[in-house]
Amino acid sequence: MVPFARVTVIGLGLIGSSIARALRAYSPTVRVTGYDADPSVRETAIRIDLCDDVANTAGTAVIDAELVVLCVPVGAIGAAAAAIADDLPAEAIVTDVGGAKASVAAAIRAALPHAAVVPGHPVAGTEHSGPESGFASLFRGRWCILTPDGTTPSIATARVRAFWEALGARVEEMSADHHDRVLAVTSHVPHLIAYAIVGTASDLEQVTQSEVIAYSAGGFRDFTRIAASDPTMWRDVFLNNREAVLEILQRLTEDVTMLQRAIRWGDGDALFDLFTRTRAIRRAIIDQGQDDPAPDFGRAH
Amino acid sequence: MVPFARVTVIGLGLIGSSIARALRAYSPTVRVTGYDADPSVRETAIRIDLCDDVANTAGTAVIDAELVVLCVPVGAIGAAAAAIADDLPAEAIVTDVGGAKASVAAAIRAALPHAAVVPGHPVAGTEHSGPESGFASLFRGRWCILTPDGTTPSIATARVRAFWEALGARVEEMSADHHDRVLAVTSHVPHLIAYAIVGTASDLEQVTQSEVIAYSAGGFRDFTRIAASDPTMWRDVFLNNREAVLEILQRLTEDVTMLQRAIRWGDGDALFDLFTRTRAIRRAIIDQGQDDPAPDFGRAH
Repeated sequence: MVPFARVTVIGLGLIGSSIARALRAYSPTVRVTGYDADPSVRETAIRIDLCDDVANTAGTAVIDAELVVLCVPVGAIGAAAAAIADDLPAEAIVTDVGGAKASVAAAIRAALPHAAVVPGHPVAGTEHSGPESGFASLFRGRWCILTPDGTTPSIATARVRAFWEALGARVEEMSADHHDRVLAVTSHVPHLIAYAIVGTASDLEQVTQSEVIAYSAGGFRDFTRIAASDPTMWRDVFLNNREAVLEILQRLTEDVTMLQRAIRWGDGDALFDLFTRTRAIRRAIIDQGQDDPAPDFGRAH
Repeated sequence: MVPFARVTVIGLGLIGSSIARALRAYSPTVRVTGYDADPSVRETAIRIDLCDDVANTAGTAVIDAELVVLCVPVGAIGAAAAAIADDLPAEAIVTDVGGAKASVAAAIRAALPHAAVVPGHPVAGTEHSGPESGFASLFRGRWCILTPDGTTPSIATARVRAFWEALGARVEEMSADHHDRVLAVTSHVPHLIAYAIVGTASDLEQVTQSEVIAYSAGGFRDFTRIAASDPTMWRDVFLNNREAVLEILQRLTEDVTMLQRAIRWGDGDALFDLFTRTRAIRRAIIDQGQDDPAPDFGRAH
């Protein structure tokens, strides 16, 4: 059960609209107020009946909130927190869904020095964006990471944990720095590489874009999905998790160099060993319910 | 309609077993003979009734064949062709499904200097392997590339084209060298990078494997699918398309270095521009029916 009577969602994109839908689906007694800085998003939210109320300003959106969830791109979270500072009830809890945690937590705390802040990150999403792309089951079975620190009241952390569990998520706590390093590996560098490979492929002299598109089923198309994710959101993630991303990228570059060398010198055993080891990771991900066991992600054939 | 009365499939893994199933589903009058060098695969093929006949030797498998389809890993194709040389009928056509074409075509022609050889490559697959993973619809809507050269009788190319079209594929012809360059971009380098990133992630000191698995839904899990593909097949592809793979990998490395620099110096515009451009490629792939339009590949949520 969601331990809040009134929840305000600031930012009604994929994640914000999924939270609103999940609340209405799984905790219909909670009153959900939404706000988005973009008036056309607010209009859409009203048209599709996303929330109980859509407020016209950030301040009025939070005026009686028990929980405020900031669902804006990482680079805009500080400004979003500042916009609610004057109207936030003293006892309200503030959380967020940003994909980088150390810099975001600092930005929220700077804007809201007296609020109970529980930085959070649901590790879930699709490549689609906007208020119409959200769906209630997005968080079911996925992990949500909370990164409370010494300034976070433990009761606030416990209530935010219960909130995510009511939406179907599993919850883990860790430090913001550790989160940023883990997500650099499992999310940020994979996205960067996907963007890079799609960019490289679309920019060659001897292979045309139409060939790249036609023969994408050889593997390339998988990368285009995450390279279709929201550009603003991802720009902000990279700018706000710089050190960890660059460190993991450096490790990956070393490993690619090793593979390059193995190919150049015809070292089939080195390739075979790696390709066997990576299969086991896939099996573990499926065993733990973190991916669809159907071949090819269950794509229609 | 398949323009052959008797087709022999050598190698009953994912692709070979899918061809057998497609023939029986869409052209049930064709007599399908199968052979695999692995006796346990032959036993499975008999048990699941994959073909009309499962032969005990490569020679007996081809003895009355009109078309022979070699579906073994690229590195084993020369030996597979040599194994049928003595028994191949003079008028039979030989094709293959190897993911690298220049070296494979040379190996087949060396083993079968008098046969009509139409090198081919259906750009389709899943991460699963073996005779039980095949399915009839694997090739529907996918492209099959044929790489005939001056030694290929054009009537043989036309018949192999009709064969693939009867299985639901679209067919394109190009030179073997061009194929190898195109596939380096759309398939080989994406696989190599996926293998690399899964290897890197499973090998870090500060992030555990269980964390990598738990939080894989942030993007990493997408890479684990293609990094679960058959190790032997992929080892052979890289060893047999060395130059093109290394060239594209070099281009990718340059582009990643540019992104690394943009992150280090906080150049958000460079990131945003690339991330916007890559979205358009995804849209084109979906518009042309080469991927599932459902969010997240249609994964169950």
